[in-house]
Amino acid sequence: MTFVYKYARPALTADCVVFGLDNEDLKVLLIQRDLYPFAGEWALPGGFVTVGESVENTARRELAEETGLHDIFLEQLYTFSDPDRDPREHVITVAYFALVNLVEHQIHADTDARNAAWFEISDIPRLAFDHEKILNTAYERLQGKIRYQPIGFELLPKKFTLRQLQHLYEKILDRKLDKRNFRKKILKMGILKELDEIEKDVSHRAARLYRFNKKKYDTLKDQGFNFEI
Amino acid sequence: MTFVYKYARPALTADCVVFGLDNEDLKVLLIQRDLYPFAGEWALPGGFVTVGESVENTARRELAEETGLHDIFLEQLYTFSDPDRDPREHVITVAYFALVNLVEHQIHADTDARNAAWFEISDIPRLAFDHEKILNTAYERLQGKIRYQPIGFELLPKKFTLRQLQHLYEKILDRKLDKRNFRKKILKMGILKELDEIEKDVSHRAARLYRFNKKKYDTLKDQGFNFEI
Repeated sequence: MTFVYKYARPALTADCVVFGLDNEDLKVLLIQRDLYPFAGEWALPGGFVTVGESVENTARRELAEETGLHDIFLEQLYTFSDPDRDPREHVITVAYFALVNLVEHQIHADTDARNAAWFEISDIPRLAFDHEKILNTAYERLQGKIRYQPIGFELLPKKFTLRQLQHLYEKILDRKLDKRNFRKKILKMGILKELDEIEKDVSHRAARLYRFNKKKYDTLKDQGFNFEI
Repeated sequence: MTFVYKYARPALTADCVVFGLDNEDLKVLLIQRDLYPFAGEWALPGGFVTVGESVENTARRELAEETGLHDIFLEQLYTFSDPDRDPREHVITVAYFALVNLVEHQIHADTDARNAAWFEISDIPRLAFDHEKILNTAYERLQGKIRYQPIGFELLPKKFTLRQLQHLYEKILDRKLDKRNFRKKILKMGILKELDEIEKDVSHRAARLYRFNKKKYDTLKDQGFNFEI
């Protein structure tokens, strides 16, 4: 079966930039392509939009098919439409980004991807298409958001220490923060609830655990703020 | 001539939300459609993406063709892809938004638009497709931006009074602001340069003129801030 149109149409895809955090580093989820073009090279998970499917659903479907990741919050990032971005023809892509907690989300390679893996943001391999540009745009968006929205709910375990939260901010901003100043500012925001629990099974002195005050967190996410750190 | 593809493809368009400001109100540029669907109804300017053309160029071209507006700064807003948003078929649209000074930008209707006109934001007619949703998204983005980026450079004449600047903020936020508080905060930002000139040909007492300090303005635009008013 074929489809005939009066005018030529660009092809349309969705791509996903998924950031994950573990105890070490900020990471990005990549797949190794199995098909032409760029077979064998690393790329963002994604694929072609089907007629009758919203682009967000394409992103969600491709992410699940290629990496096994599902049930995550995708935010639309930007639409990239440079006519030369794909060697096959004019392919326009709508990019999405997501934040996930690596401890809770497992991945596996599937369908037209040869492999799927997490890469440290500081050690990204050469990427297919214009995916380096898309990744940079997503990383800049993430670094920008941290200044006027609370971030961490999706990246941290339910209960976490202030050290873990500071680690997250440092990894996203890619610089060291002053511990005392960071704690003062983050506590003042009122998005944290101090728990009557401490860390378990750690070699260092067990620290106090916190969780996010979801209501206050969502309010600040809607209203925005200015977090200068 | 026709074009044949192995898989069905959604159609792709670009649409523009152009906000303008004059001495009265915040306005939106609309065109009256001349063709099916929604012939005779008002809509955002826009049209189909041609293969080999970036979507931003489509937006720019259609805006010029349909309204005569050109050389304005377009920012990508969001891509809307609901399969039911167009009665013809699955049409995905990339929306852009722009801010213009109504005194400096003239419009005229052209090509497949029957008419082009500025509508007050508080008095928008029924719109074709999902253009009301797109317009609302753009207006929310504008109201959000004003909190963490300087706004006004594109909307005001080169030289302006503090009263005009406050008028702009009040029209975008859709509420009255305290004059003294507004002036104190806006001057503290350091983006204004006080001129050695006053208004001419006004019936009220002539006020001091200002212009934007472009360098400081651009720095704040990149870095963001928090302007609580």
